[in-house]
Amino acid sequence: MNNKVLVSIAMPNEKDLEVMLEAVKMLESFGIPFEVVVASAHRSPEEMIRYAKGVKERGIEVIIAAASGAAHLPGMIAAFTTLPVIAVPLKSSFLDGLDSVLSMLQMPVGVPIATVSINGGRNAAILACQIIGLHNDNISHQIDELKISLSEEVAKQAANVKL
Amino acid sequence: MNNKVLVSIAMPNEKDLEVMLEAVKMLESFGIPFEVVVASAHRSPEEMIRYAKGVKERGIEVIIAAASGAAHLPGMIAAFTTLPVIAVPLKSSFLDGLDSVLSMLQMPVGVPIATVSINGGRNAAILACQIIGLHNDNISHQIDELKISLSEEVAKQAANVKL
Amino acid sequence: MNNKVLVSIAMPNEKDLEVMLEAVKMLESFGIPFEVVVASAHRSPEEMIRYAKGVKERGIEVIIAAASGAAHLPGMIAAFTTLPVIAVPLKSSFLDGLDSVLSMLQMPVGVPIATVSINGGRNAAILACQIIGLHNDNISHQIDELKISLSEEVAKQAANVKL
Amino acid sequence: MNNKVLVSIAMPNEKDLEVMLEAVKMLESFGIPFEVVVASAHRSPEEMIRYAKGVKERGIEVIIAAASGAAHLPGMIAAFTTLPVIAVPLKSSFLDGLDSVLSMLQMPVGVPIATVSINGGRNAAILACQIIGLHNDNISHQIDELKISLSEEVAKQAANVKL
Amino acid sequence: MNNKVLVSIAMPNEKDLEVMLEAVKMLESFGIPFEVVVASAHRSPEEMIRYAKGVKERGIEVIIAAASGAAHLPGMIAAFTTLPVIAVPLKSSFLDGLDSVLSMLQMPVGVPIATVSINGGRNAAILACQIIGLHNDNISHQIDELKISLSEEVAKQAANVKL
Amino acid sequence: MNNKVLVSIAMPNEKDLEVMLEAVKMLESFGIPFEVVVASAHRSPEEMIRYAKGVKERGIEVIIAAASGAAHLPGMIAAFTTLPVIAVPLKSSFLDGLDSVLSMLQMPVGVPIATVSINGGRNAAILACQIIGLHNDNISHQIDELKISLSEEVAKQAANVKL
Amino acid sequence: MNNKVLVSIAMPNEKDLEVMLEAVKMLESFGIPFEVVVASAHRSPEEMIRYAKGVKERGIEVIIAAASGAAHLPGMIAAFTTLPVIAVPLKSSFLDGLDSVLSMLQMPVGVPIATVSINGGRNAAILACQIIGLHNDNISHQIDELKISLSEEVAKQAANVKL
Amino acid sequence: MNNKVLVSIAMPNEKDLEVMLEAVKMLESFGIPFEVVVASAHRSPEEMIRYAKGVKERGIEVIIAAASGAAHLPGMIAAFTTLPVIAVPLKSSFLDGLDSVLSMLQMPVGVPIATVSINGGRNAAILACQIIGLHNDNISHQIDELKISLSEEVAKQAANVKL
Repeated sequence: MNNKVLVSIAMPNEKDLEVMLEAVKMLESFGIPFEVVVASAHRSPEEMIRYAKGVKERGIEVIIAAASGAAHLPGMIAAFTTLPVIAVPLKSSFLDGLDSVLSMLQMPVGVPIATVSINGGRNAAILACQIIGLHNDNISHQIDELKISLSEEVAKQAANVKL
Repeated sequence: MNNKVLVSIAMPNEKDLEVMLEAVKMLESFGIPFEVVVASAHRSPEEMIRYAKGVKERGIEVIIAAASGAAHLPGMIAAFTTLPVIAVPLKSSFLDGLDSVLSMLQMPVGVPIATVSINGGRNAAILACQIIGLHNDNISHQIDELKISLSEEVAKQAANVKL
Repeated sequence: MNNKVLVSIAMPNEKDLEVMLEAVKMLESFGIPFEVVVASAHRSPEEMIRYAKGVKERGIEVIIAAASGAAHLPGMIAAFTTLPVIAVPLKSSFLDGLDSVLSMLQMPVGVPIATVSINGGRNAAILACQIIGLHNDNISHQIDELKISLSEEVAKQAANVKL
Repeated sequence: MNNKVLVSIAMPNEKDLEVMLEAVKMLESFGIPFEVVVASAHRSPEEMIRYAKGVKERGIEVIIAAASGAAHLPGMIAAFTTLPVIAVPLKSSFLDGLDSVLSMLQMPVGVPIATVSINGGRNAAILACQIIGLHNDNISHQIDELKISLSEEVAKQAANVKL
Repeated sequence: MNNKVLVSIAMPNEKDLEVMLEAVKMLESFGIPFEVVVASAHRSPEEMIRYAKGVKERGIEVIIAAASGAAHLPGMIAAFTTLPVIAVPLKSSFLDGLDSVLSMLQMPVGVPIATVSINGGRNAAILACQIIGLHNDNISHQIDELKISLSEEVAKQAANVKL
Repeated sequence: MNNKVLVSIAMPNEKDLEVMLEAVKMLESFGIPFEVVVASAHRSPEEMIRYAKGVKERGIEVIIAAASGAAHLPGMIAAFTTLPVIAVPLKSSFLDGLDSVLSMLQMPVGVPIATVSINGGRNAAILACQIIGLHNDNISHQIDELKISLSEEVAKQAANVKL
Repeated sequence: MNNKVLVSIAMPNEKDLEVMLEAVKMLESFGIPFEVVVASAHRSPEEMIRYAKGVKERGIEVIIAAASGAAHLPGMIAAFTTLPVIAVPLKSSFLDGLDSVLSMLQMPVGVPIATVSINGGRNAAILACQIIGLHNDNISHQIDELKISLSEEVAKQAANVKL
Repeated sequence: MNNKVLVSIAMPNEKDLEVMLEAVKMLESFGIPFEVVVASAHRSPEEMIRYAKGVKERGIEVIIAAASGAAHLPGMIAAFTTLPVIAVPLKSSFLDGLDSVLSMLQMPVGVPIATVSINGGRNAAILACQIIGLHNDNISHQIDELKISLSEEVAKQAANVKL
């Protein structure tokens, strides 16, 4: 696999990396080149737009965007690109992230985003890999391996249950 | 009062005018010059940005922005202007507009918007007039009159109660 | 474009087609070969599993699965395939579909699904096309056209606003 | 009472045993033979199905299945068996388990599950005993005793109240 | 099958029968003798208690109790009997029955009830049959048949899908 | 019973009488002298305060106050009187009245109000009568009669159940 | 004031006294004779009923009943007495007590309870005193004093504000 | 800038200053003269009304009012003044402040308030400055600077991201 970045992870604050590190680790374990970007739809909109407009022509295939509260970042990136955007609602201080979810879920017709679970960085990365894996046998193979490992982990736990 | 537009009403769909007509009528009754704009943060973001960036230099003082669902319009306008933005959450097909409210309420520090009631076009217009009235005696006077009329209306209803 | 089915639309009841027709129309307009399948995780699980296991080897690239209430279909399909699964929460008779959303949103680590808006069949189809368009210039081009048409539609509405 | 297992407790993660220990203890105190199984509808679906299909012919009478988040385990077990399935929604990191509840509650017509309280392992076990007690005088008698002890405990607390 | 009543259906208002008719029909189709009782925990508590206390000794095996709003009937019946109580939260005029659900769900330790879906009369009846079927081959067989018919119905719908 | 008004029913709009007519009828049936007042905490606060301050010295014993949305009327009346205030949350256009309930429920320490059910005018009137009945044998007797009639009504329905 | 108990405080668990101590202290400060009772609608229903039926003839005027979760105690006491019942929803482990609130709020027509704030023991006691004060000048006077002290406390805080 | 107070910050408890200190600091940094007032709609209504009625004639332009629970302060101030009132819902012990939000949001037609985010003291202050800045070049300039600093902060974070 060459070094062309395939996944771009965007988040509004440096500290969101704490949660999104799960996405980072998952992509690293797959060997998928990625980048991490701090971008804010509200506080730095010009840079966010430049980022969103340019991401496709840089050959990136999937965007993972996290946000919390009035969580506009994934939706606004989707407004400027036709790449698939995976949205990660971050747990907020209000209703455990229900505000983040509802700010993402009901996007208008024509501008979809793919919402995963609250703080679901790892699942966002796996979904990105499933998409990339459609035309990348290496990744596709690794996704298959991951699925097997999930079931092996359950089997191990099943064998270990002690009362 | 001259004809300089003081309030700009933005909404994502022509049909939202049904609800926002309350704002229109209220501003008309105050004799405040205003404009109505269709703008979409998600479907027509470039035009939305041009609008949001230009609205202040055109001498407009207050923006009223309505939206529903993943309601990003008021927040995105606020990202591009320092004018006060009044947000009207529109009743949606999901949870009676709770999604609209939560998409607006928890804006990040530094980029406030002023959320009024669901479908609260009329109150948005009155709030705009309260702001404009701070330096406009005509409007200020009319707001005072409106307050009196509210209480007169209650008095009339109180007198009419028939069992 | 040849006739190989690229998108599979699954739903638990024939009558869900009323809502999912939006997805059907969108895919037809893009000329993407697709299929519509009735499958139930709860009432016909063996067939659902056969379907979910076989869908990848038939060359299908994206699955769109709708469900309501205790909405398990998208998650259970995702349990049996590594294809990207787009989940459409259907408006239910309870809390306007919040039960459908919450049954889909918090999938466990390792088994992501991509949730779109309630009754969001059209957006599910567009998201599917964005994914397919990553390696299909025809589709990619059409997605670009769709984005332009969204903004043209807003412009037309903006020009038409009559008070 | 012989050793034939009558109740099977299923949970998706080993660590869920912390909560479900309440069920374990209650069944032990009744002397009902039971088993504890780790099974995951999403991560290890083949094993889950094998388990769900086989549980009835092993003579088990009631299944207690716990899950959290997009909580599909009880519903999917119910898809493969006609034994009564008692569902325990586990407190999740999101809305205190409301997502778990709503993922279980609205099962489609034809495939019921019996939902008890959040983290309600003990009540799930008692409900299982009430069902088994319908044709087991020993268990029936113990349930009667438990009911008496509940009221005695209240009486003791009532007598102890000190201000 | 003799005529001994095995299932008692209780509801607070005659008009709740509209919803609970689904339970009635299902039990009739199974040939299970049942009774329908109007009982109110709040408005006629003495009669409700007499009913709840006597139901077991009449040989009844399962109680299905419906209620809405501050829905106390199933829980109060469970306070007076050790029979399994299946609770049907009825759709109320407030939050689509969420109040009914939350009035039932969190029963205290020691007094479980088995909550099914909102307005889920039919599923309540099936759950009752699953419980009775544990020691009744006729019913057990019919439940198996029902499960098969569910899957056949899906298959029929699957074959019929017309675009 | 003389004609001194004992209960004052306050509501913000004449049209709320549609719902509060239930309270009116109940008080009439008890022969309790009452008054109906239109008062608005927000639109006519001076009159509302005059009303709230004067109600006690007029010999009134209980206030029933209805409101919807940002429902401040009962709480503001309670701020100006030490009479018991019964609050009736009216069903609103938002979340079926959950906003009305939450605007009333969490009153600060020192200023209680007694919240009854949504649109619960009749129950508000009965609660008022229970309070007045503490020192009024006539009313007390009628409340006892009402309780008996509730149970008789249930008995009649119980006898009528037809399948 | 003689020693006749005027207020009865009921709660399902001894440990609920931690929260209800606020009610106790408030009643003590008013010099109102009261009692504290542990009673459970679900676990000790016979004793609860004996208590509820007997409370009026013992000369008690107001009942304060606390409960959490599927909070049936206040409603069930109200089913057996015509005294005013003040309900205190206790903060539960689920949705911060929303389940307690919704289990109390929507009582059926004919059986009202007066719900105060979550964990609102002190307000329940004040409301009880407002009711008793209608025919007790001593208590009435103390309620007036309390109201004055509230405003004095605010004035003191207002004077103290330091930036 | 002279010393005339332009913004009045009102809150019901001295301890609310902990949260509202964010508003204080922001106004101080802008050099806007302001005052902090403890006022309670429920516990000290006369003083609250005197305050609300007098605030405009003292030359104040914007009121920021915080409250929690049954949060009536902002709405009641708005009932007595025509100045713009910015409402800050404080995080409560119930539903993370959803009760505070819903007590503020749905104000009746004619009496708007501008709700900002939960605990959003800083955004309330910025919104106040945006309003004052409409006719105050100094403030207007500082708001522009603040907006630039937001984007610079994002840029700095973006540059710092370390994996």
